[in-house]
Amino acid sequence: MTAYDTRAANGAGESATLAAFASEFDLDAVPADIVARTEDLFVDWVGSALAGKGVAPVETIAAFAKSMGPADGPCETLIDRGRTSPLFAAMVNAASSHVAEQDDVHNASVFHPAAVVFPAALAVAQASGASGKEFLAASIAGYEVGIRVGEFLGRSHYKTFHTTGTAGAFAAAAAAGRLLGLTPAQMNHAFGSAGTQAAGLWEFLRDGADSKPLHTAKAAANGLTAAYLARDGFTGATRILEGAQGLAAGMSSDADPRRLVDRLGSRFAIAETSFKFHASCRHTHPAADALLKAMTEQKLAMADIASVTAFVHQGAIDVLGPVVTPKSVHQAKFSMGTTLGLIAAHGRAGMTEFDEMFDRADVADFRARVTMVLDPEVDGAYPARWIGKVRIVTREGRTVDARVDEPKGDPGNTLSRDEIEAKVIGLARFSNAADPAEMTKLMPRLWAIGELNRLGPLLAAG
Amino acid sequence: MTAYDTRAANGAGESATLAAFASEFDLDAVPADIVARTEDLFVDWVGSALAGKGVAPVETIAAFAKSMGPADGPCETLIDRGRTSPLFAAMVNAASSHVAEQDDVHNASVFHPAAVVFPAALAVAQASGASGKEFLAASIAGYEVGIRVGEFLGRSHYKTFHTTGTAGAFAAAAAAGRLLGLTPAQMNHAFGSAGTQAAGLWEFLRDGADSKPLHTAKAAANGLTAAYLARDGFTGATRILEGAQGLAAGMSSDADPRRLVDRLGSRFAIAETSFKFHASCRHTHPAADALLKAMTEQKLAMADIASVTAFVHQGAIDVLGPVVTPKSVHQAKFSMGTTLGLIAAHGRAGMTEFDEMFDRADVADFRARVTMVLDPEVDGAYPARWIGKVRIVTREGRTVDARVDEPKGDPGNTLSRDEIEAKVIGLARFSNAADPAEMTKLMPRLWAIGELNRLGPLLAAG
Repeated sequence: MTAYDTRAANGAGESATLAAFASEFDLDAVPADIVARTEDLFVDWVGSALAGKGVAPVETIAAFAKSMGPADGPCETLIDRGRTSPLFAAMVNAASSHVAEQDDVHNASVFHPAAVVFPAALAVAQASGASGKEFLAASIAGYEVGIRVGEFLGRSHYKTFHTTGTAGAFAAAAAAGRLLGLTPAQMNHAFGSAGTQAAGLWEFLRDGADSKPLHTAKAAANGLTAAYLARDGFTGATRILEGAQGLAAGMSSDADPRRLVDRLGSRFAIAETSFKFHASCRHTHPAADALLKAMTEQKLAMADIASVTAFVHQGAIDVLGPVVTPKSVHQAKFSMGTTLGLIAAHGRAGMTEFDEMFDRADVADFRARVTMVLDPEVDGAYPARWIGKVRIVTREGRTVDARVDEPKGDPGNTLSRDEIEAKVIGLARFSNAADPAEMTKLMPRLWAIGELNRLGPLLAAG
Repeated sequence: MTAYDTRAANGAGESATLAAFASEFDLDAVPADIVARTEDLFVDWVGSALAGKGVAPVETIAAFAKSMGPADGPCETLIDRGRTSPLFAAMVNAASSHVAEQDDVHNASVFHPAAVVFPAALAVAQASGASGKEFLAASIAGYEVGIRVGEFLGRSHYKTFHTTGTAGAFAAAAAAGRLLGLTPAQMNHAFGSAGTQAAGLWEFLRDGADSKPLHTAKAAANGLTAAYLARDGFTGATRILEGAQGLAAGMSSDADPRRLVDRLGSRFAIAETSFKFHASCRHTHPAADALLKAMTEQKLAMADIASVTAFVHQGAIDVLGPVVTPKSVHQAKFSMGTTLGLIAAHGRAGMTEFDEMFDRADVADFRARVTMVLDPEVDGAYPARWIGKVRIVTREGRTVDARVDEPKGDPGNTLSRDEIEAKVIGLARFSNAADPAEMTKLMPRLWAIGELNRLGPLLAAG
């Protein structure tokens, strides 16, 4: 039992216990690999934040922020290198982070932490002149809180609510509150104010409406608001998560308060977070990884391959099966054949590859030679494990089988720093937020964020 | 059937039908008494907005708005006569409107419309240079939408959620969207964005925490945000209220979509809204009104009265019974004896009376001569009707009975314009937001708001 297990066992509310952890934990006691992982997730997030540039709903939110906010300020909006107050920087950066679908995800909580945690943490750190270490500690606080709130709210919540919107407000409050130096009691007041603003409904999916980036924008902004208010003495409900008229009472039927305080201080849930590698539907990722592995190991070129069979779970067939001849970049991301074609042609299926070559002749030709087959082993393991299995038949008539047991980006098959850099540079180039030369030069500064005495703007030109 | 009944019956979604009404209805077709009622509610609201000045949670929200927002702008924050952007003006004015508990209420929806509608409408009207007529039309749109959303969400919703927070976001979106000239489709997108931000949990009551003004602040600000985003092309769910993953699916178990479109264009629910007259707990109001009636009709002075028996419903005994000797102004508002003592001493039980004389010797003495008795008729009629019945025994030994069938402020016993003025002037004086001379001078301008060609600041000094 950690000190927090003991505290909870002794009758402190779970909200209060989680708040105390977020306020008090000592970064020096956090294992070095967790801190390094936080740096990885931060650099990966910069790519997602830049990727939102030029996307209509994000630009609409950014224009709203500009019209309602101050003309200048200590904080940075990444897509346009603008300066504003913490509230609007958090709002705009969170909107842009969640629109390219390249931001990280925690599987068990079905929660996208980076899109809400880093925008809030960066804004408050830039406003308060925090050190890089304080920024990393705040980010860890945000992940640990948000993931546990998502796990607590459970599957019943996720049926109707976008957990990244609801749990995200707590994650942002924790990150912002940590940087503002909130006491445990103040942090719990911030949770109370965050929870009583928590929102985000899935109904928009039915219309393909623009709500998704609004959810992250408001989660980050509302959590940040809650933290500043708490710093200035504003009180909130002390059992906002587990109370009789709290968040779970209103929005969940299977909430388990023990998940809120699960191994606080010994389990770092941030390490369970997955990176998104390919820019396609997640159901294509296991087969894409297996194909890439086979081609690399067997030194196969695109022209060597006569056909590919992808052995998949039923969900992949349900979602990807209808897409035979994709008509748009977005639809191509739901085409197994296109994704594997891009892997075969380029070794990558990123934003740029989809945008530039999803319907190129060689990719379209390859697409027609890909088949999906339901596989009992793969289907049985899903969704706990996403196994990738492919069978290649070469032009020479040779059969090559390959498998990966965890898709690229999951904790057991994580991205290297080189791969994260390549992803981030590609996303920035794709959206025209920054060219590769600038991003390449920026990278050492991003990796070394933990060493800064005082956080300034990330991108050079103000 | 109105045109909107027909539209709904023909398969348009209820959200879309309600949005079309808010966008399209013709102010010239609204009965004159409804427009006059809207003016009454507006002037009454100014009092509540000014009453929040100096209250800690309101001032904390105002300071946050100042630190995050622009240094100037076209919109007015009433408590400090500051200027800012529409977002922050709506936020601060809505926070201040709901903290003195003097703002209006719609009984059937358990929704406080003024606190969320007028702040959003005033901010957008001042920013856009709207006319007074457009402002009144927008306010009516806000009331009609918010009340119907509150009725739709029902009692199951109100058990956990503060309807003024959740329905309030729609009310503010309707008011703001009407002033921004949203088309019916855009208005429904605004509803989608408002609903996916809608929040507000009762859990704070358990701690007596500061969330209540935060709920109105965020409802007004979020609704306004949704309207501006919709104007700029941002889309939202088209069935956010009734959809399978919409607001009712997530937050209600007794929602009835027919309530959303109930007699749109023929029933003006704004006319069903009650004014709050006395500054005490609502459970004291019926008896206070009956006492005042008896004293006026019988020309009784405080010194003439030996004892008062208040015949009440059980809820009044439950809530007021424990308060024997109030120790604070706030607690005195839950004391039947104190409330009746102030009525007897001063003919009023307003903010100033409570603040200045709740424990004065003559009031405390009167308090000890007040008894509550459960009355079968009063209890049976509650909560549909709040009957006031008192029996006075005079020093001379005479018995005087009095009753009122609707408490002062309810639609059947509404406030005169003189009474509204006195209330507003009293609230402004109480909070030191404006002195009686200034308020008296201001009154004709407030009553004539519908005649303005272009809305400017309400209070003279900028």
